[in-house]
Order: sequence, then structure tokens, then C-alpha cells
Amino acid sequence: MLRAYLIAIGSELLYPGHDDANAIYLKNRLFEIGIPVEGISAVGDEEMPLMRVLESVAPTVRVIIMTGGLGPTEDDITKKAVARHLNRTLQYNEDVKRDLEHFFVARHRVMPDNCLRQALIPQGGKVLKNHVGTAPGIIMDDKNRLYVLLPGPPREMQPMFEEQVLPELLKRFGKPVFCRKHFRMTGIPESVLDQAAAPLYQKYADIQTTVLSRPGDIELIFTGRDEDCAGGLEVLCGEIRAKLGDFIYSEQGAPLEEEVGRLLVQRRLTLSTAESCTGGLLSKRMTDIPGSSVYFLGGVVCYSNESKIAQVGVPRDIIERHGAVSPATAAALAATVKIRFGADSALSVTGIAGPGGGTTDKPVGLVYIGVVVGERREIKKYQFFGDREMVRYQSTQAALDVLRRMLSD
Amino acid sequence: MLRAYLIAIGSELLYPGHDDANAIYLKNRLFEIGIPVEGISAVGDEEMPLMRVLESVAPTVRVIIMTGGLGPTEDDITKKAVARHLNRTLQYNEDVKRDLEHFFVARHRVMPDNCLRQALIPQGGKVLKNHVGTAPGIIMDDKNRLYVLLPGPPREMQPMFEEQVLPELLKRFGKPVFCRKHFRMTGIPESVLDQAAAPLYQKYADIQTTVLSRPGDIELIFTGRDEDCAGGLEVLCGEIRAKLGDFIYSEQGAPLEEEVGRLLVQRRLTLSTAESCTGGLLSKRMTDIPGSSVYFLGGVVCYSNESKIAQVGVPRDIIERHGAVSPATAAALAATVKIRFGADSALSVTGIAGPGGGTTDKPVGLVYIGVVVGERREIKKYQFFGDREMVRYQSTQAALDVLRRMLSD
Repeated sequence: MLRAYLIAIGSELLYPGHDDANAIYLKNRLFEIGIPVEGISAVGDEEMPLMRVLESVAPTVRVIIMTGGLGPTEDDITKKAVARHLNRTLQYNEDVKRDLEHFFVARHRVMPDNCLRQALIPQGGKVLKNHVGTAPGIIMDDKNRLYVLLPGPPREMQPMFEEQVLPELLKRFGKPVFCRKHFRMTGIPESVLDQAAAPLYQKYADIQTTVLSRPGDIELIFTGRDEDCAGGLEVLCGEIRAKLGDFIYSEQGAPLEEEVGRLLVQRRLTLSTAESCTGGLLSKRMTDIPGSSVYFLGGVVCYSNESKIAQVGVPRDIIERHGAVSPATAAALAATVKIRFGADSALSVTGIAGPGGGTTDKPVGLVYIGVVVGERREIKKYQFFGDREMVRYQSTQAALDVLRRMLSD
Repeated sequence: MLRAYLIAIGSELLYPGHDDANAIYLKNRLFEIGIPVEGISAVGDEEMPLMRVLESVAPTVRVIIMTGGLGPTEDDITKKAVARHLNRTLQYNEDVKRDLEHFFVARHRVMPDNCLRQALIPQGGKVLKNHVGTAPGIIMDDKNRLYVLLPGPPREMQPMFEEQVLPELLKRFGKPVFCRKHFRMTGIPESVLDQAAAPLYQKYADIQTTVLSRPGDIELIFTGRDEDCAGGLEVLCGEIRAKLGDFIYSEQGAPLEEEVGRLLVQRRLTLSTAESCTGGLLSKRMTDIPGSSVYFLGGVVCYSNESKIAQVGVPRDIIERHGAVSPATAAALAATVKIRFGADSALSVTGIAGPGGGTTDKPVGLVYIGVVVGERREIKKYQFFGDREMVRYQSTQAALDVLRRMLSD
């Protein structure tokens, strides 16, 4: 059966703070071209643990991709372990030697002695050029299995994989995506989505379904790998839209802030924001999108009551009578920040992000959203769950989604 | 040799979007108590690949921690694979059975038939109670090796590990941290830090050093595991301070926004911000810290030129003469936002985050920071590299650091 295994080599991966970014990149790319991954491992800079992984996975997979451990130091043991695992010798490769010498001459630097180790290639291995660093990659066949050795730094690994490995994988095993639909939704809990969507997509055995979910955002990705899927995918997407259309904000996998930006551009409207509990996260998300200056004028982070009054223009008696976390304050924030910035639309968020500040009447997670688009306005109340970060993220999702719905009407 | 191996079980881990958060959590906790990790693997919901990992790693490690695959469905194969690997039978555990029945009675729900599978425990295994979900964990010994099976959802796994597994690990193998120093630095490239710090810490073989680095932030963690290290650690920290003190913003591992907050509280000063290219990220970071409302009054995200003039109060002719990205505009933004919010101090950021908007004179990554604390003011110019996100993050690091230095004087 066609399967790949990913192995990252590097002792730092076993310590706090260094996670295996290459596995995340590679499993995405293999998914794209339809090569299933059997497993992912990370081991330190030691020959024996790597050899044990190789010996244990080799019998059942067709592709083994290793990242890291190709450098010039004693610690870099990947080639030695692979040579031993395949019972091959390491031999100096003259082309690589020359490339290394050129690399240092071009930079007016003296090549360190140990650097030549990078020219050692297991017998029968084909060299993959490294256009960014000095360690070459290697690709080699053994008994109907493909071994790929790539450098550890992502900026060296990724172009080498894209330019020199991917074409080879596609040629041998690839089943590229024929059709795909990438729904993104908000405002629906994962369990409810599951109950609604699973009976629909489970009918289509040839369409691969991936569900990604976090509080406030769900992605539902359908992938078909041949022509026969196309019709089914279209029917399935129609059924999904009929049942869940109200929650779908993108069918192209775009984040909500991009979708809101697209709608603002389409309607030639500008936006401003007034944020209390989200503290700038909403405007940060709006400006994550390059080119957002066309529609996003700016906002006020009004963390204190005084700044809600003086900087945004909320009447003092509204805050005194209703409190800062109230529908009246949310409404006033949106209305006044729109006027102040001379924007066509405005969003406001006021709530209690926690962990402190909650009361019985106004618990942590209580959030009011205010939206104004032209003359239309809406105020919404939410009770979110989770920690400070989760409450703040869900608040921005809710705010953007209310605006999206109003812009879509 | 004392070593642990981490195995995550779950097919979703092999697909895009689901990464193994449990391994990250567990490797941090094992590091804390001085148990080295030999490797980390993730496999799907299939018995054979898991068995192969178990067989390959068992001979060399003392602890194997598995997460996931303990649920009630056919897919949940962890217990079956472990029982087979250890040549033991699975037996119903009466206590777990009773707990499961109670769980459903208390929630007025009928227990699904397959749920009882969760009461199957490999012979000789000790049950770990799950206070959050229904799947119990298991801990068992076999030939001088400890097997730990934990549920996959982090909110179930983490308390079970902390309350029921960690004490056992500490008792058997733990070498808790005796002394630690966690330096955080900004304003120094990693390569420069390496050259300066490595010759210092390499002298202390018994002190473990971890370097974590991303553009704009470097962490240097020293850990000693016995009394003998304490003296050396103190000398080493003195040397680090002498050489790198100018770049150190925390010796307790605190993020920069927390450190700035601490200094503001100490000096009883309030802060406001005016952000252009960072679009709210600076105020978002300030308000990431619970309780920041004591010192953070709020800010303006002045993404458009007009909002810099109308909302912050920058004189129009400054922007017209010098441009929005200029030292004069940065100075005016900080000075005026301080007055507007009635704050004791202010930070401003204006620059070109990219990818578009750069020119030969003002390339992508050019950023000006303005700081005012009382009557003192500073304007700084930076040229950052990297993508939009990296430029924006580094800008906020630089802004917070200038403020920190002024507050520390």
C-alpha cells in the first residue's frame, strides 16, 4: 500500500520550545498529492534511535522522508544511519565538493575542515541541490522504497522539496487533487455540525473529508482525486449549503477577516472599530490582510471607561446607567466610532474576557457586539466559554460574522 | 539509561490541521522533572503501526507515554495494541464500569452500548480516573518499564497527567529542577548571542542550556538539577548579565508586555498607544495580560492618514511634508495620543509592514517608533526583515523594548 513516513532528526526537537515544523509542512503537501502518511517521528542526533525507526517502518511504507541531521558536524548522523540501515558505504561526491568550494569562495570565506563531510553521499544516492544553504539533500531507491533526506532548516528544506522532490513523488505516486471545496463556518458548535454534516458526506466514500475545528471556527474540507468525484462533490456541496448555509462564510478556505474585507471592497464601504475586551485583536485581524488600508480606516482601543467617553464619544450617562459591558454601551461605541472616523460602517466589542472581572450578573465570557452599516444597526449578546484568549478570539469571530451577514444581505 | 518515549495515537494527527499538542505539553513537563525524551511518534488509529513503534522503542526506554485511542469506538485501538505487545489479556474492570454508569445517570443520559469498552483494562493495569471525560487512563509496569496510557483530548489528558502520573514519575525517576534562570532578550540577533553566550555556558557541563529564538525574541534557559549547580549557575548568570545585560528584559521568562506592565505598575504610570502598521497588535499584546486595565488606557489604530490627523491629532502638514512613515509623524503620534488619552506615557508605531507599499526610499520593513514618558521622548528607526507578520511582531517588540528601557532608567 502506498504510504509515507516522516522522520525529523534533531535533539532540539525533544526539548521545550522547538517543534517539528517540517512534519506539519510535509504532511500538508503529501495530503495535497494524495500520499497517505503512516506515521511521524522525531528523534535526537543519535544513530541508534534513528536506525530503529528506519528498521521498524521500512517494511510497510513506500516513501521515507527525513529532515535534519545533514550538516557538517559530528552530531549530524542522518547519512551515516541511512547508509548503515541500507548496508551501503558513504562516498565523497565530487560535484558536491566543488559546489561547497564555490560556495565559500563566492563568499570570500575559508571552508571549515569538517564542511567537506557534507559531500559524503550514500552509494547510489542522487544529490539534491541546496540553493539556500550548504547541506545537499539526497534521494535514493532501495527495494521498491524511496528514501528522501532533506536539510532541517525550513527555508532550505521547503524549496528543495518543492523543486526537486515533489515532481518525483508526483511522477511515481501522485494523485493530485482533482476537485476540492473548503468550507469555513462560524456560529455553530462542532458537535452540531458533526450531526448535520456527517450523514451527508459519509455517503461519498470516494470524497475525502477533513474537519478542523476550534471554538469559533470550523473548517470542512472535501477533496476528490479523480474526475468521477466531481459530480458527487457538487451534489454534496449543495446539500451542505442547504443544511448549513447560514453558518458558511467562505467556500474557498478564506479567513473571516479576508471575507469581510472582500465584501467591504465590493460594496465600496469603509470600516472603523471600537474595542474594549478584545484590546486591538479585531483591528489586528482586519489589518492582517495586505491591502486592508483600502477599507479599514482604523479604530479605538478603549480599554478604560474614560477612553470610551473621551476617545470614542460614548455619553457618560450611558456607561453610568448601564455599565461598560451592556447593549447600550456596545450600541453607542459602534455609532460614535463610525462618526468619529467618518466611516461607512463600524464594529464594537465590549465584554469580560476574564479571568477576573466577572460577576453573577455579568460573568466572564459575556460579550456585546455592536454593528452599524449605513443606517442599519444590530446589537448582539454572547456568552462564550474558555480562557481569556479563547473568549477574545471568539468575540472577534462573532463581530466579524455579524458584519459579514449585514454586508451580504 | 533513563529515557521516555512519547506516542500519540489518532489518524487526524497525520492530516493537515491537527498537530500533536500533547507531545509539546508532555515534553515540557518531562524536561521540568529531568526525564530525557528519546523520541516522539504519531501514528493513526491502527493496531499494527502502534505495535511496531512499541516493539521498536521498548528495549531502550524506561517510560512510554501514549495519548489517544482510549475511547469507546472500534477505532480506539491503543489498549488492544498494548495488551498484545505485552502479551496480556483485556479484562473488564468493575470500578470503571460503575463509574461509567454513574457518569451517564448523573447526566440523565442512556449509556451507549459500546461505551463499556472503556472499562476494558489490560491485565495488571492500574486505572487512572478521568474527572473530565469518560475514558480512564492506565498505568502499568512491565519488565522494568512503565507504560502510561492517557486520553487524547488535552483537557482530559493534562489534569490526569498532573494529578496521577507526574507524582509517580517524580517518585520513581524524577530529578526536579534545583535551580533555573530563564533569560529573555530582544534587540540582538541569534548569531551574535550565540557567539557571546556559548563560550560562557559551555564551561558548565552540569548546567543544561536551552536556546529558543525567533526574530525579535530570544530565550536562554539554564537548568541545574542538584545543589552543586547552584554556585556555577550564579557565576554563569553574572557573566551573562555582564556581557548581554543590555538586551535582557526578563530573568524569569516573562514576556515583554508583562515586564512593561510590571514597570508601569511600579512607577504608577498609565500608557496609551497609536498604531499604524501594527494595526492593533501592540494594544492586543498589552491587553493579553490579565489586569492590564490598571495601566493601559487604550489606543488608536490609525491606519489611514486621515485618522492619524483627525483621531490622534497629528498636524496635517507634518504628514504632508514628511510622510506617514517618518520620524516626525512617529513623534507627533506619540505626543498627541498621550495628550488625548490623558496618559502618563505613550507609544507609537508607523512603518511599512509589506508585502506591498515599499519604495526605494522607504522599503518594506522600515519602521519608526515614538515613545513619550512624562517629558522625555525618543524616536527610533528600524529596518526589519521577514514577512508581514514578522515585521509587525518585531515592530511591537521594538516599541515595547524602547519603553521598557526608558521606564528602567
